[in-house]
Amino acid sequence: MKILKQNRPSQRLLVCSLLLFILPGLARGTAVDGPVDTTAAAAGEPRNVILIIGDGMDEQQITIARNYLKGAAGRLLLDDMPLRSAVHIQTIEDSVGGKPVYVADSANTATTMATGTVTSIGRIGTSAGDDRDLTTIVELAAAAGLRSGIATTSSVTDATPASFAAHISLRLCEDPGTMLDIRYGDIPLGECPADLKSAGGKGSIAEQLAQSPLDVLLGGGADRFAPAAEGETTSVADLARRNGFELITSSSQLASARADKKLLGLFAPDDLPVRLRGEGGREAESPRPSLLNRLHPYLGSVTLPETMRCEPNPAYGQTPGLRQMTDAALSHLSQDNHKGFFLMIESASIDKQAHERKPCGSIGELEQLEEALASAMEFAQKHPNTLVMVTADHAQAAQLVPDESLFAEFPIPIFTPGKLARIRTPEGGNMAVNYATNNFNMEEHTGAAVPLFGNSEALGRIPPFVRQADIFTISMEYLGL
Amino acid sequence: MKILKQNRPSQRLLVCSLLLFILPGLARGTAVDGPVDTTAAAAGEPRNVILIIGDGMDEQQITIARNYLKGAAGRLLLDDMPLRSAVHIQTIEDSVGGKPVYVADSANTATTMATGTVTSIGRIGTSAGDDRDLTTIVELAAAAGLRSGIATTSSVTDATPASFAAHISLRLCEDPGTMLDIRYGDIPLGECPADLKSAGGKGSIAEQLAQSPLDVLLGGGADRFAPAAEGETTSVADLARRNGFELITSSSQLASARADKKLLGLFAPDDLPVRLRGEGGREAESPRPSLLNRLHPYLGSVTLPETMRCEPNPAYGQTPGLRQMTDAALSHLSQDNHKGFFLMIESASIDKQAHERKPCGSIGELEQLEEALASAMEFAQKHPNTLVMVTADHAQAAQLVPDESLFAEFPIPIFTPGKLARIRTPEGGNMAVNYATNNFNMEEHTGAAVPLFGNSEALGRIPPFVRQADIFTISMEYLGL
Repeated sequence: MKILKQNRPSQRLLVCSLLLFILPGLARGTAVDGPVDTTAAAAGEPRNVILIIGDGMDEQQITIARNYLKGAAGRLLLDDMPLRSAVHIQTIEDSVGGKPVYVADSANTATTMATGTVTSIGRIGTSAGDDRDLTTIVELAAAAGLRSGIATTSSVTDATPASFAAHISLRLCEDPGTMLDIRYGDIPLGECPADLKSAGGKGSIAEQLAQSPLDVLLGGGADRFAPAAEGETTSVADLARRNGFELITSSSQLASARADKKLLGLFAPDDLPVRLRGEGGREAESPRPSLLNRLHPYLGSVTLPETMRCEPNPAYGQTPGLRQMTDAALSHLSQDNHKGFFLMIESASIDKQAHERKPCGSIGELEQLEEALASAMEFAQKHPNTLVMVTADHAQAAQLVPDESLFAEFPIPIFTPGKLARIRTPEGGNMAVNYATNNFNMEEHTGAAVPLFGNSEALGRIPPFVRQADIFTISMEYLGL
Repeated sequence: MKILKQNRPSQRLLVCSLLLFILPGLARGTAVDGPVDTTAAAAGEPRNVILIIGDGMDEQQITIARNYLKGAAGRLLLDDMPLRSAVHIQTIEDSVGGKPVYVADSANTATTMATGTVTSIGRIGTSAGDDRDLTTIVELAAAAGLRSGIATTSSVTDATPASFAAHISLRLCEDPGTMLDIRYGDIPLGECPADLKSAGGKGSIAEQLAQSPLDVLLGGGADRFAPAAEGETTSVADLARRNGFELITSSSQLASARADKKLLGLFAPDDLPVRLRGEGGREAESPRPSLLNRLHPYLGSVTLPETMRCEPNPAYGQTPGLRQMTDAALSHLSQDNHKGFFLMIESASIDKQAHERKPCGSIGELEQLEEALASAMEFAQKHPNTLVMVTADHAQAAQLVPDESLFAEFPIPIFTPGKLARIRTPEGGNMAVNYATNNFNMEEHTGAAVPLFGNSEALGRIPPFVRQADIFTISMEYLGL
């Protein structure tokens, strides 16, 4: 179902996103409250930015994970971060002077965090309307001699990682075989003819990543690097090797990877398997009203889904965890580095599992994010010039709802019109999670602002409310770029 | 429909809420990070706490209001507050050692903020299981010679205001006529026999408020003060007068109220009318699938609700705004006050309108909260020893969803199984709000953590993550109680 994700026809018209969205925030002092020594990197004290993105990790997802993993009286590592802010999600129509759109996707939001420019849904590192390539923080860091890396639990060609190092009009154009006439069955989903190398473009996302200045790129997506590169007889993976990447495919290879080569780790054909799943693979299910209740809502009864626990996902196997990828990336990026680095770490399937109405999957992937954060915080302890930020790209559909209706005194069946999972928590409570944004086989995103957490380096640098473009500005200023 | 709200049978068993919920937070330094001079009040520098509660005001509600009132690039006053934290919602079963419950109501959450003790759904200032009266911050402030006040857009006997100055096992026991066998039609909703004065109790919420130490109590609920007090021939309003309250009922009376008397303002029979409504009184509506689509989800089409604007609610009339009530309360509480005060201000119908699937109503009441906050911040500018906090008591059902599905390329009707409002924003966008937590005529609450905002006095006193009981502790410590 991956191909079903949020693509949009690419309309190529001018848009005033930069002026409309970035400047107001900066004019109000959004980006920097405290003094930032932009000469630190140049003075031989390297500065590092670790940006951790929990895809779809909104306040509902965090609360659900806290209740399950730590209990209602427990604390996540996120809760102990010294700074908490909120991020307003940004996107616009794909047209000249495009109006605001109030719910975003992972492509446009990652592009905004990577480039500081607000764009339209489905776009990777390109501008709304006129399809200009937008320079990313990875490219700016590389040009200044800093290192850069990406670690993700999705395919490395998926929207969030791609937006930090590629430029293409549609997120679905992930490899040389998906540049034209992309279809799901008979349904056309878009294409990227202007991005073909033969048309003067930069090629598919995989080809662009293979030729990128990234020092570390870890995640899934091996199948995207297997096809022949456009106009060549060798694969996209070979393109990466020619660009200096060492290609690895297993957890053990990751543990022993050389630190003096660019590192491309592809640990699954597509997205990495998730850690947790519902008991027996269950997901949220429809309540089942009795025949009488179908005749009249005041009559009959309803059978809610049985409660369930979360269990290890058998498909997870030897998949390297986000923590192992984070440790490897940090080790790789920091060794003998006198100029600093930018690292983006993504726990991608908090969102993907929520699209599929699988709360246990989201909980396990939020736990992975916590583990990666623990690594990042340990690194920052040893390397004090490290700004650690954790945020989400957009809110998601899942809602923590009462397991027993607030109106249960009323002797009629009260139940969600959507799909419900009732999870038995380790502390013995019942946690009900509702998915009811649509009748499709994938839930919608939602538009609420998302949390932003920071380590002590964030204090005085990140105000209590920012926009997504500010994350780019804050990162750039911290790195002295 | 007000009587439909979240009551629960009151079970009277012991519960270890205090130890379980408050101590862990404090042990981790939750309550106070910086030095607090608890002798300030005694030393003649009065300290004040203004706690503003947006009922149901979660991140979805705030984002929806920001988009409508200020535009996607705009800022609310909330966004300019110096401190942002998050509050984990707390409630437990009404039994000995009651397990955590993951979604709360306004009665138990307000009780926790008012007393520091976690309790069960439906309870007003009483403990879960054993039904003990829990001393509130209003009572503690009064005992120490501080003044106290409440201003709300609901009936003053509603759950949130009541929890700060009354003690009763069930929120529905609002006046002497609703103490026994409360019913909605034929449906029994509970009762409070042990709280009758004749049984040695303190009487209904209205009677307790009439006899409370509050200096200012402003809102709706005149009908709750009209019945005869239990065992008396005169009304509850007379009870209040005998306790020194001046009773006023209009905006003009509020403007000219005497500052040297206790003030009881009842500006509507029940809850105050809200400021905004949907065009022509419209609320969220069900999408209408075509006959063909009812036969098979891949076929036919769907008609979504027409877009609408928000418009002034004709029923609002001369209702005093939350800002006017706040100004009056602040003036009343601060005049010739050398000991400080505690003031709770509630914008109640952000929640109530969300229960009824009326996003314009929620937006208008969030605007009222912003205006009250503006007053509070102006007061704090002139009276620097004033801690201003803004928070919500729980999250709500409304979700900001894509106006056009993220999966719109698929040539099948994709729409919410719930109810949808499509609001045309002043900047020309379409904002879709989904309500889909149940099939009843009132939506459920949700369980996500809610935001907490603070003024400069909050810096160093409120960490980035707290529990609701900490709000009591923080307030008490600030006031030196």
